[in-house]
Amino acid sequence: MAVAELSPCTNTRLHTSQLSSLSTRLSDHRRRHSFRPLPRARNAGIFCSVAPNQIQAPVAAPTETPKEKADCFGVFCVTYDLKAEEETKSWKKLINISVSGAAGMISNHLLFKLASGEVFGPDQPIALKLLGSERSIQALEGVAMELEDSLFPLLRAVSIGIDPYEVFQDAEWALLIGAKPRGPGMERADLLDLNGQIFAEQGKALNAVASRNVKVLVVGNPCNTNALICLKNAPNIPAKNFHALTRLDENRAKCQLAHKAGVFYDKVSNVTIWGNHSTTQVPDFLNAKIDGLPVKEVIKDHKWLEEEFTEKVQNRGGVLIKKWGRSSAASTSVSIVDAIRSLVTPTPEGDWFSSGVYTNGNPYGIAEDIVFSMPCRSKGDGDYELVKDVIFDDYLLKRITKTEAELLAEKRCVGHLIGEGVAFCDLPEDTMLPGEM
Amino acid sequence: MAVAELSPCTNTRLHTSQLSSLSTRLSDHRRRHSFRPLPRARNAGIFCSVAPNQIQAPVAAPTETPKEKADCFGVFCVTYDLKAEEETKSWKKLINISVSGAAGMISNHLLFKLASGEVFGPDQPIALKLLGSERSIQALEGVAMELEDSLFPLLRAVSIGIDPYEVFQDAEWALLIGAKPRGPGMERADLLDLNGQIFAEQGKALNAVASRNVKVLVVGNPCNTNALICLKNAPNIPAKNFHALTRLDENRAKCQLAHKAGVFYDKVSNVTIWGNHSTTQVPDFLNAKIDGLPVKEVIKDHKWLEEEFTEKVQNRGGVLIKKWGRSSAASTSVSIVDAIRSLVTPTPEGDWFSSGVYTNGNPYGIAEDIVFSMPCRSKGDGDYELVKDVIFDDYLLKRITKTEAELLAEKRCVGHLIGEGVAFCDLPEDTMLPGEM
Repeated sequence: MAVAELSPCTNTRLHTSQLSSLSTRLSDHRRRHSFRPLPRARNAGIFCSVAPNQIQAPVAAPTETPKEKADCFGVFCVTYDLKAEEETKSWKKLINISVSGAAGMISNHLLFKLASGEVFGPDQPIALKLLGSERSIQALEGVAMELEDSLFPLLRAVSIGIDPYEVFQDAEWALLIGAKPRGPGMERADLLDLNGQIFAEQGKALNAVASRNVKVLVVGNPCNTNALICLKNAPNIPAKNFHALTRLDENRAKCQLAHKAGVFYDKVSNVTIWGNHSTTQVPDFLNAKIDGLPVKEVIKDHKWLEEEFTEKVQNRGGVLIKKWGRSSAASTSVSIVDAIRSLVTPTPEGDWFSSGVYTNGNPYGIAEDIVFSMPCRSKGDGDYELVKDVIFDDYLLKRITKTEAELLAEKRCVGHLIGEGVAFCDLPEDTMLPGEM
Repeated sequence: MAVAELSPCTNTRLHTSQLSSLSTRLSDHRRRHSFRPLPRARNAGIFCSVAPNQIQAPVAAPTETPKEKADCFGVFCVTYDLKAEEETKSWKKLINISVSGAAGMISNHLLFKLASGEVFGPDQPIALKLLGSERSIQALEGVAMELEDSLFPLLRAVSIGIDPYEVFQDAEWALLIGAKPRGPGMERADLLDLNGQIFAEQGKALNAVASRNVKVLVVGNPCNTNALICLKNAPNIPAKNFHALTRLDENRAKCQLAHKAGVFYDKVSNVTIWGNHSTTQVPDFLNAKIDGLPVKEVIKDHKWLEEEFTEKVQNRGGVLIKKWGRSSAASTSVSIVDAIRSLVTPTPEGDWFSSGVYTNGNPYGIAEDIVFSMPCRSKGDGDYELVKDVIFDDYLLKRITKTEAELLAEKRCVGHLIGEGVAFCDLPEDTMLPGEM
């Protein structure tokens, strides 16, 4: 990666104080013009740090008035050379991780996990590039300040901004968490359109400026179709690199199976979530195993498996929001960590994990050209392959067909955003998961 | 540790549904009686899991109707034997960690860090025992559900409750995060009294039921004097085991020094926070080092060090709350992790860390019998020793004297809670840190 590509620092950028006033002006503008969408200035609101290979001289005896880059965020403006120091010279090359919705609650958990080394390991320095909105830019500065105060040795750069064309620059991972929540009276079709536009724009931005092999994980709902929109707008990035998060569903399914079987959750394996991250999703108990045995041999209450299990998995978020008063930000961020780790560490022998991925020659006969959650294995190189040795029965197939039909209907709703002309929306029912409204 | 001591499971306890109705009844009661304090039922609201050494038989082929313990929390009711399995038999013995204020935002970050293995290491299974209030018990169930859904292999037991005598049972670590916030018009003296009563009760509970060598970290404010009250009410636990958290202040000080010097924060070492976790605290730049050199040799702007540095450290929380709209839960929880890790891993050669500890024969001439933040080193055995080779100048001593005077005044305010008769409160000014009101 060339120096010029790695850092956006050579562009004209605004200082914190200027940004604050920009942010205020934008708010004023918004109020006066009653929420007309604003054109986004390319250079608005980016802070950046300096890449390690841009160093001119190693830091030895700092001078009285150190050279400060006015467009960096706080302490992350510092120049350094990881290869020059004993403790850090065995470290891998810095990777860029872009996160949207970075001022939200899920990110507030996730960013600190990324920075701690829990996800990419203790020898992998990272740069966090945080995407917010005009409205959240102050909060984003707060997040960056807390990251500073945490003194994470592996966190070597933090930048914040509101323009995906800046923030996604050279991203090797893009974690797309931000999405608009559904407003009162809003139909799922409206939400698909509203968020679809965001993901179309972000797809274009990734296509233009991200690493050519960027891995993209879409968390913002409706995540499968958002991921489809995103990849369709990023034709120069392999479609295989896009994922929609169904890992929280998988984790919840494992927990419910463990609970029912009376075993600890580490005994449950081979759980697939098939299809959409919605109420049509299919947690698969046919292929799942407990202590190496098929679930149906361990849990003899098949009525529970067929009639209660799926609902228990899906209602989890709703129950939680009632008890806790907030959505499940902590466990969602844990499942994002799990999803990333599953791609950067080899999958344990005989097991697999679920991810919403692009259907393109899948062995299950599922419709092509949608984003569908399926069982995957990885060598730990960031890539994955689909698992072939799964079985189906009528019950499982019938439900897979239903979630497939829903994803095809969602795709028709967003035809205008994926280059297929006019949208035609005939979604039969509301399938948002409880707690994710 | 005997089996009978380890698990509170043999006591009479309430089911989730009963607890919910209890909780509702308590709320009704509260409303009718306009916030009179309630007597706490000893057995109200505890969920528990089973200790590994209570297992009768290893889990092999689960039966159709597994034996469920009705008083456990969800999946954590499972019986298992860590020594019976290849993956876990090299693990250490399970440790009990009790956390108060467990439904709050700091805990919402911290609990997931504890459960991930980030704090105590990848071979240390843990049990989390969560203390909430009548008001927060539903939220606490939500937290426990999110912990279930996170499938942390090391997290082997979770229990929740509202009675410290239950929740602190056999605790080897007690992280006391919960405290009442200061209400409108409330003086610091009122807050000292209000929270002091909580910490007096919790000290008594620890004294009665916790491990005889429990390590106690007080985060709830005013944390130094709360820690003093707590240890005075726990005469059977070594006073040396009690800590008041000043690590966030230390981390912030390191970040500000790094920023000013234009170096990355990993270059800053030997930073002491002296005294109280309040605006009288003394971030020590005389003994601190940057890249091994005294700070004053690196940062030549001594006016900044004397006149701006401390304020910058202290205002951090206030600036953050303005930008982010919330207090610094994430970085506080990171600093709690740092504080614990500093006690369970050997301190790097030549460095030290700050902790608010009991003064009892300190080498600095600081008044005895208070909780004062000082420089500590640890062999990683949970214990610490004070650092002797520090230097003082008039500027540093004058400020240490001021924070010492404040802590002595706070102690006089809580005389009634530490067995010293009538309280006499003459606190001169409000010294709560910005953002911690």
